[in-house]
Amino acid sequence: MARNTQVAADHNAPPVTQILAEFVATHPGYLAGGWSPAVDHEAHRTFMNWLGCAVGAAHHEAANAALAAVQVLQPAPQATLPGRAEKVDMASAALINGITSHTFDFDDTHLKTIIHPAGPVASALLALAEHTGASGRELLDALVLGIDVACRVGNAMYPDHYDRGWHITGSTGTLGAAAGCARLLKLDARQTAMALGIAASQPVGMREQFGTMTKPFHPGAAARAGLMSALLASKGYTASPKALEAPRGMMQTISTKNDWTEITGELGKRFEISFNSYKPFACGIVIHPSIDACVQLGRQGVTPDQVESIELKVHSLVLELTGKKEPADGLQAKFSVYHGCAAGLTFGRAAEDEFSDEVVNRADMVALRRKVVATVDDSIDEASADVTAVLQDGSRVHVFVEHAIGSLQNPMTDANLEAKFHGLSDPVLGAACTGELIAACWNVAAAADLRGLAALASPRA
Amino acid sequence: MARNTQVAADHNAPPVTQILAEFVATHPGYLAGGWSPAVDHEAHRTFMNWLGCAVGAAHHEAANAALAAVQVLQPAPQATLPGRAEKVDMASAALINGITSHTFDFDDTHLKTIIHPAGPVASALLALAEHTGASGRELLDALVLGIDVACRVGNAMYPDHYDRGWHITGSTGTLGAAAGCARLLKLDARQTAMALGIAASQPVGMREQFGTMTKPFHPGAAARAGLMSALLASKGYTASPKALEAPRGMMQTISTKNDWTEITGELGKRFEISFNSYKPFACGIVIHPSIDACVQLGRQGVTPDQVESIELKVHSLVLELTGKKEPADGLQAKFSVYHGCAAGLTFGRAAEDEFSDEVVNRADMVALRRKVVATVDDSIDEASADVTAVLQDGSRVHVFVEHAIGSLQNPMTDANLEAKFHGLSDPVLGAACTGELIAACWNVAAAADLRGLAALASPRA
Repeated sequence: MARNTQVAADHNAPPVTQILAEFVATHPGYLAGGWSPAVDHEAHRTFMNWLGCAVGAAHHEAANAALAAVQVLQPAPQATLPGRAEKVDMASAALINGITSHTFDFDDTHLKTIIHPAGPVASALLALAEHTGASGRELLDALVLGIDVACRVGNAMYPDHYDRGWHITGSTGTLGAAAGCARLLKLDARQTAMALGIAASQPVGMREQFGTMTKPFHPGAAARAGLMSALLASKGYTASPKALEAPRGMMQTISTKNDWTEITGELGKRFEISFNSYKPFACGIVIHPSIDACVQLGRQGVTPDQVESIELKVHSLVLELTGKKEPADGLQAKFSVYHGCAAGLTFGRAAEDEFSDEVVNRADMVALRRKVVATVDDSIDEASADVTAVLQDGSRVHVFVEHAIGSLQNPMTDANLEAKFHGLSDPVLGAACTGELIAACWNVAAAADLRGLAALASPRA
Repeated sequence: MARNTQVAADHNAPPVTQILAEFVATHPGYLAGGWSPAVDHEAHRTFMNWLGCAVGAAHHEAANAALAAVQVLQPAPQATLPGRAEKVDMASAALINGITSHTFDFDDTHLKTIIHPAGPVASALLALAEHTGASGRELLDALVLGIDVACRVGNAMYPDHYDRGWHITGSTGTLGAAAGCARLLKLDARQTAMALGIAASQPVGMREQFGTMTKPFHPGAAARAGLMSALLASKGYTASPKALEAPRGMMQTISTKNDWTEITGELGKRFEISFNSYKPFACGIVIHPSIDACVQLGRQGVTPDQVESIELKVHSLVLELTGKKEPADGLQAKFSVYHGCAAGLTFGRAAEDEFSDEVVNRADMVALRRKVVATVDDSIDEASADVTAVLQDGSRVHVFVEHAIGSLQNPMTDANLEAKFHGLSDPVLGAACTGELIAACWNVAAAADLRGLAALASPRA
């Protein structure tokens, strides 16, 4: 008991548990001028992008397995699983919707921390709101505040915490979900601190799980744990009011770096949801500039049958992470810049379908991939790509992408997000219902409750 | 992405996830000679001690708050909460029974790691077994194996992991519960590895929570997470098969020390449940020798009204951790060796009742506490105490306790455990029903299922 920890404890940390709890519990919300219309629009985009991802993967084998396990508990039908007809209790819905929204690795990214914030936060909020009857406006406010908590804690611990092995989406997501749910339940600052405190004992997720169903389990489990933490606090369950910052609290236990000013600085002025981004392509972000360039080649009239070769110049990191030349299936193709280029040129897009085993093994795709000649050029930023199509007539078409579509500098437009949503949801809900659901997302702030939107997200009988 | 972790990764760790999974899935069990009768008797003692603690705290405010939160989910009545009439789904029962069994800090201790192993493991197992109809023998086998997994992983990481801030009962308990539940569900080695893998992403609990309801939440949340991990694996959910030992797996992420031989050494020969101990007194273990000595003074005929003073010589650690001279309430009294001595001499015991606010503030207790004169003597081991009662007639009665009752060297007898169980359970279930329940615990290996025992643990209507 007289042993020391390996890392010097910071006994002078500011009371960030209390600071965040008061921020979440007492913030006036958007209608009282709490944030700008631009921030609020980003909240709509974040919510819609999350919902489309959840619908799209609703029948993935990970969702089926998780739902089968939950059904052993004979759950009450409290909350909708977007894209599915079954209902389960709201905590189980938070789990499963967190899983589906992250299954395709196609959800949002807070680029500074690589947190996928909507998975844990929105999954908990929609389930809770549907059951309690909270309004759409209340859900959006809770989403902005919950994401702010998760990403600010992430900013404070990143990168050391991530480098150590934590999947930061799950470890900070529990706090974001707890904060959002506490807001939705109208807990006061003291109870909100208890919710954060209970959540602080439940960071979820190790990076070793990447490539397995347990990766998307992380935002799901974080959503569930955060929702339950808020419910427990609402019934009088207690935790340490210094659970985040104390020497043996969450943050110092799971991170050797804790920059407290990332939590307290510009609180209520800078909203982290402003820095959320949405993937246009269903693969690792490092391939996105190359795919974007090939999509642009197609728009300039280049067709696959004209192509003699595609000369690709990229940063060394791109080939290090995604240099798989002959991917054997869809999962491997997500780590193949060669496949990404072929898909971008052939289809003008690279969503989940373009990474299916079937497409990956098509003869024309195999042939086109082999025409891609990649070379390393470290003068090119890892967020950029330089692509030249050499045609059979000897002519050359060149595209340089500095910032790929989907980056903060070149964000997806609202129309891009709608098209992405259709791509995910049409096969599950049909195009017409998907259109209605998209409209409901844009109008969510006016919804008296979330039940209508949830009903639109369920397949019609 | 090219950054390094702060701590050198061990890329040569043995495949302990697989090793433990095969051990749990393929072990022949007790009836095939898998362990000695002594080990099996310890399993009975562990189970009984856990159940008594759970019954005793069944109506504590922490249990009430947790149950109220769970009831918002409208759970199916699958499993019993010992000491209560309500039933909830088995995962929620695992949570709540894990909370109640640890609420009084009166449960078992694997002294080498300070893990309280039954809380996470037995809480998950009884809930699962009651619902599935598993036999008492199957439950006991799963208890031995689940505790072995939790404590072996704890041995590997202790003390660095604990020093860093983790409440090791919750962080390793998830694995123990997952292993036990996988065994009870008869998962094969591959699925058991998946159960351990899913559990490995969910370590629970920071030491900052000590003194709040979130401390007993840790074994509860671990029990729940472990049970769900096994259920998920049984439905085909996947995880990394190297989730424990990989460089960015659980153990290297949450501990800077990992002695893999603690997991693999004498596996199947040495069972960690053999080293489980049970508290005779409802307070920190460091006061136990002093209380034991005062109980012995009473047995030698010393009564409180005879006492002029009590001279107590103890290791400095005892006063450092439990030197509170004038405790104001029951919680503070748990950190007062002075109160412990007064209670031991006055009542001949120091269970939860003797740490009630009422007893702590009784005038005779205040007066007797003030007669205790404690001095530090570091030649006395921290597991020992030297106590002399100086009586008003000038005579002196001396007791030296080398190993307190409840230590491995001087374990609680079966009769001691029964008396402890009665003390916890009689106020909840009544003495007659408690007697029946105790008998059911000793006979659990012969039970075709756990439903009869669970019914005995519920208050009669």
